[in-house]
Amino acid sequence: MEDMTINDFLKGDKFALFAGVELVAAGNGYAKARMEIKPLHLNGGGVCQGGAIFTLADLAFAAATNSHARLTFSIASEIHFFKSEKEGFLYAEAHETFNHKRLSNCEVRITNEKEELIATFNGTGYRKDTALPFHPLL
Amino acid sequence: MEDMTINDFLKGDKFALFAGVELVAAGNGYAKARMEIKPLHLNGGGVCQGGAIFTLADLAFAAATNSHARLTFSIASEIHFFKSEKEGFLYAEAHETFNHKRLSNCEVRITNEKEELIATFNGTGYRKDTALPFHPLL
Amino acid sequence: MEDMTINDFLKGDKFALFAGVELVAAGNGYAKARMEIKPLHLNGGGVCQGGAIFTLADLAFAAATNSHARLTFSIASEIHFFKSEKEGFLYAEAHETFNHKRLSNCEVRITNEKEELIATFNGTGYRKDTALPFHPLL
Amino acid sequence: MEDMTINDFLKGDKFALFAGVELVAAGNGYAKARMEIKPLHLNGGGVCQGGAIFTLADLAFAAATNSHARLTFSIASEIHFFKSEKEGFLYAEAHETFNHKRLSNCEVRITNEKEELIATFNGTGYRKDTALPFHPLL
Repeated sequence: MEDMTINDFLKGDKFALFAGVELVAAGNGYAKARMEIKPLHLNGGGVCQGGAIFTLADLAFAAATNSHARLTFSIASEIHFFKSEKEGFLYAEAHETFNHKRLSNCEVRITNEKEELIATFNGTGYRKDTALPFHPLL
Repeated sequence: MEDMTINDFLKGDKFALFAGVELVAAGNGYAKARMEIKPLHLNGGGVCQGGAIFTLADLAFAAATNSHARLTFSIASEIHFFKSEKEGFLYAEAHETFNHKRLSNCEVRITNEKEELIATFNGTGYRKDTALPFHPLL
Repeated sequence: MEDMTINDFLKGDKFALFAGVELVAAGNGYAKARMEIKPLHLNGGGVCQGGAIFTLADLAFAAATNSHARLTFSIASEIHFFKSEKEGFLYAEAHETFNHKRLSNCEVRITNEKEELIATFNGTGYRKDTALPFHPLL
Repeated sequence: MEDMTINDFLKGDKFALFAGVELVAAGNGYAKARMEIKPLHLNGGGVCQGGAIFTLADLAFAAATNSHARLTFSIASEIHFFKSEKEGFLYAEAHETFNHKRLSNCEVRITNEKEELIATFNGTGYRKDTALPFHPLL
């Protein structure tokens, strides 16, 4: 436990790794992740696909909600798409708005390199009794 | 136009292809897609990751809502996760509940091989004036 | 406890009573409610207002999710509006799609007297340990 | 048109009036509304009911999204409930995060008198061609 971090924990997420999502920061109900748009992320219209944006946002949510070192599953999410993007990095910042013993809610904003709002995401988590193998992140 | 189908159209979606999503059927506001769970889809808990399930559901939504051969973008989605799955095929079936000149709404059910409900997805689309290069699917 | 029913329980909901919502049936994760559209329900466009439709749907959700006689709170809902209505009864039918020890999810369809789809509603509930003062409804 | 305001326009909303919702401010994609919790708003648990909170949030959304003086309908909303309240005023502040020719998205925060977060609401609107009978609010 001494040496494990939330980043190590999330590296077990093969799909997020596969999509190229990187965790930039996490702690105390907050997290930031990023993903560089590459050809594999594009949809038929040549812009970053919704499932890729969801995957980015969901990892930021998972890091924020699990930052208390208590295993939390996603039970529901909503995503709103405002603007398409075809290149550069996308960033997802998650803030926990509700931290209950059993429940969690996070708001995530997805922006491009110009800090334009690409999408918003809202995630609800359910906490298990399981402690995670790292210290709560402050 | 003569020979193009919605399947050809959706093959331009690199991220869905990358995630291994296949379109099984589409027409008249309905679509079915599937995805075989492979190691790349797993999260740290060893079960199919939420972003992969979203990507599967979103392709079924895209096929159903674009089956009228009028370009329709996703503007918002909600997904509810009920049960985890670690192997076999997942199926997503989309039914359009609302087909308006400018707006569309689809309900998608995601099931496993035992026909257990894994997740539900609701997608809202905004229609452009653009005609798609295939005949409306009946 | 002998004589109390879920209908008695829900009669404590002053706002639903005030809005004229009536519970028609409830049991085993299912419920049906109705509301006759009256002048008080109209918005500036002369059609039934969204908050009134939400209140109708939410009562059907509450009845379905509490039908197991275990106190369940609403933690999140989504509502999609498809068609406006200005007169007659609206009906809301709720089906529980997920019944977990701590969590519940219901789909609700709101229809008019012609059985046209007016709106869809999805509700997520969180169950407390509290038993409700009636027998589970089968 | 000279003398009409968005407040006059929203007074046509009988259900919001009936629920005691008051518009406090509106302009340029922003609005604030309030509602004093009274016995009629309570549910069986003695706290302000979800449909009443939705009605408050929805009016703030309607005022923010219609502040551009272009008729905009609600097509979908999500609401997340975090904390119950039984007395005093509730406030709803709406900010438009997306202002497109045909579409709008607003985030609404519902707080109590102690500025604690009671709920969050996200509303999506569809704009008609109809101009509203007041000047755009800046």
